[in-house]
Amino acid sequence: MAQRKLGRGVAIVGAGMSPFGTFARMATRDLFVEAFLDMRGSVDKGLDPDDIEALYVGNYSSDLFEGQGHTAPLMADWVGLTPRPATRIEDACASSGVALREGIIAVASGLYDVVLVGGIEKMSNLPTGEVTDALATAGDALYEIPAGFTFPGFYAAMATAYMHRYGAQSEHLIQVTQKNHENGALNPKAQFGQRIADIMEGKKERAAAKGRPVPEWESEMAFFHDDRANPMIAAPLRLFDCSPISDGAAVLLLVSEEIAGQFTDEPIRVIGSGQASGRALHDRDTLTSIPAAQRAGQMAYEMADVTPDDIKLAEVHDCFTIAELIAIEDLGFFAPGDGYKATEDGMTARTAPRPVNTSGGLKSKGHPVGASGAGQTVEVFKQMRGLAGERQVAHDVDVALTHNVGGTGQTCAVHIYERGQA
Amino acid sequence: MAQRKLGRGVAIVGAGMSPFGTFARMATRDLFVEAFLDMRGSVDKGLDPDDIEALYVGNYSSDLFEGQGHTAPLMADWVGLTPRPATRIEDACASSGVALREGIIAVASGLYDVVLVGGIEKMSNLPTGEVTDALATAGDALYEIPAGFTFPGFYAAMATAYMHRYGAQSEHLIQVTQKNHENGALNPKAQFGQRIADIMEGKKERAAAKGRPVPEWESEMAFFHDDRANPMIAAPLRLFDCSPISDGAAVLLLVSEEIAGQFTDEPIRVIGSGQASGRALHDRDTLTSIPAAQRAGQMAYEMADVTPDDIKLAEVHDCFTIAELIAIEDLGFFAPGDGYKATEDGMTARTAPRPVNTSGGLKSKGHPVGASGAGQTVEVFKQMRGLAGERQVAHDVDVALTHNVGGTGQTCAVHIYERGQA
Repeated sequence: MAQRKLGRGVAIVGAGMSPFGTFARMATRDLFVEAFLDMRGSVDKGLDPDDIEALYVGNYSSDLFEGQGHTAPLMADWVGLTPRPATRIEDACASSGVALREGIIAVASGLYDVVLVGGIEKMSNLPTGEVTDALATAGDALYEIPAGFTFPGFYAAMATAYMHRYGAQSEHLIQVTQKNHENGALNPKAQFGQRIADIMEGKKERAAAKGRPVPEWESEMAFFHDDRANPMIAAPLRLFDCSPISDGAAVLLLVSEEIAGQFTDEPIRVIGSGQASGRALHDRDTLTSIPAAQRAGQMAYEMADVTPDDIKLAEVHDCFTIAELIAIEDLGFFAPGDGYKATEDGMTARTAPRPVNTSGGLKSKGHPVGASGAGQTVEVFKQMRGLAGERQVAHDVDVALTHNVGGTGQTCAVHIYERGQA
Repeated sequence: MAQRKLGRGVAIVGAGMSPFGTFARMATRDLFVEAFLDMRGSVDKGLDPDDIEALYVGNYSSDLFEGQGHTAPLMADWVGLTPRPATRIEDACASSGVALREGIIAVASGLYDVVLVGGIEKMSNLPTGEVTDALATAGDALYEIPAGFTFPGFYAAMATAYMHRYGAQSEHLIQVTQKNHENGALNPKAQFGQRIADIMEGKKERAAAKGRPVPEWESEMAFFHDDRANPMIAAPLRLFDCSPISDGAAVLLLVSEEIAGQFTDEPIRVIGSGQASGRALHDRDTLTSIPAAQRAGQMAYEMADVTPDDIKLAEVHDCFTIAELIAIEDLGFFAPGDGYKATEDGMTARTAPRPVNTSGGLKSKGHPVGASGAGQTVEVFKQMRGLAGERQVAHDVDVALTHNVGGTGQTCAVHIYERGQA
């Protein structure tokens, strides 16, 4: 079945986000307002909020994290959009990638010209164990969770299979972490915006200040193999293989392509959108790739009429280090089993022709799950527009991609963007 | 701002539902499969499930009710739709009314020709108090719930204000219950498909069988005023003013109008769709109407180019008796304050020119919250196609309406349907 085109073109003309981190004194609505204001400031020619016709907001589970359901109209109210239609989209950690797709579809349908797309999550209210339990509900609550699985365990199973099949070592996983922290150190909104060397130095300083033995590591890899500094979470995944528990919000402004010039002379056109579903991990044929990601990627490439080689920058879903390696293979950037070698060779670094996760990725920037997909698009918007500050890549990013996964791959949304002219 | 039209026409060519009730041995996925198979049987010329291109599923909070998030791809899997895109829509009790709108928008966008829309909820796993708490998260968890509000309390406040302002009595509320049970008694899928007289008789029989004093009531109204038979829940609302805790699923098949003839010679065209958001109740200007419902209705009427007088049958959101009275006023069927008089005069009865809730409504049919909106459309489909069995209305239903409210009115979705010819 050939991938159909959208009824009309859609462009992103504004993008913003709150800092990602843990904010004890803020509720989801506060983070959303912050992201909204940041987005508003990014619209070159200004935005009258009255022109916004609808809101789609991705949110995994404010129900479980915050005791607050029915979040969409609440977000609409707090940025002054009442009585505009406000719809919450939930597809686990792909919630706002899918919300973006719904926003695109809504503009393409002709019903709206101006749509706000958001992503939100406030996870830090709960103790870590309860966050883990809440996230586990994105698996299969009848067939997987009773067997003891939580998300580090799911991805540990994928990592084990990948390492066994392709010969990757734990060092290859951690190279993803090193790269993403290197990038995140240049992102002022990142939750853990420090290079690994700085994290090591900080640990030494804090030990000295407390009069404890100052740890010494021969190398970064020695640090990563230190069970105290980097404890095992679910073998082979250690702490630094895992994205953090985060609070945050991200917001995008979508308009029909015909009117993009009213907002900016540099619209970011959405030229490809793919979404696919997958079975729960226990019922899947493979652990070393995510079929829904492969299919969503194919859909997006076909709609955009580009190939993986055309992509000049990608933000992919590195909820765990293994997830980035699988992502860059599923997207066709590298052949199956070559992702870890390519990473080792620096082919995903910020200075490479097709850098991956220049924002710091979910690992360093943070992973407020329902906000992560929209957050990826914020990075693409900034890099394509030359607004990424210290982490701005040197080459021209005319075409870019985002890859947002829900659960272990029961959902994937892939989008492809092209810098247009109004 | 004039209401825009959809990019292309959309028709409903199949509709089905599980029974509504409490089903201890079934999970959400089982109910969804049952509704899917019922829908499939309703497609006159047959349906190849491979032709379905995407799934939108409305669900309020399987997270809280069932410990299962990320429900959409799971539902897709259980009816064999993997890897089609599967998206969960959440707008509290309006979740599947909004999912219907998203399905309509998606077909109108040109991206899909055939879309499945579902609604699901499995509420009976939890004890009643926890269900009430879970539902309360559809209010404002910061400003309303800490003050002690739950949903019977919210609607009791609305009922009190309505009665005070317009002079309605509790008898007027209960006339909604009498009518809806009269209708639900003719609906084999209703959870409480009994007329009030039969419920009274049943109570007497059970008392006699247990050797207890057999209650005697002089009239139905005496029964409704009996604090033991019909206890006060949140004054002035008693037990029989409230819809029940329910499990259930409903499924609709949407196609682009051009290909409707491949499925049936009697498509139900969607000619109007409206959705609006509203503030939380504590921050609203009125308690006697729901502004989001008024606006969603106006949007739908304008898109459909019809007036309230053109509607030949309506399913409205009677989560509490007061909600139906407010609904029929918000939709313009009757002037503000006249809804209770019209109900008393039989103008919403099944034999009236514009009957309301022929299915039994949420009160008698049941209210599995995420499924209720899609369930309303199932009734419209059956009545417009002459498939409603014993409760089939005598007049020709060429134009019908559904009205689905989330929370206390933070969301409302209204749809208008016209019987078409393929």
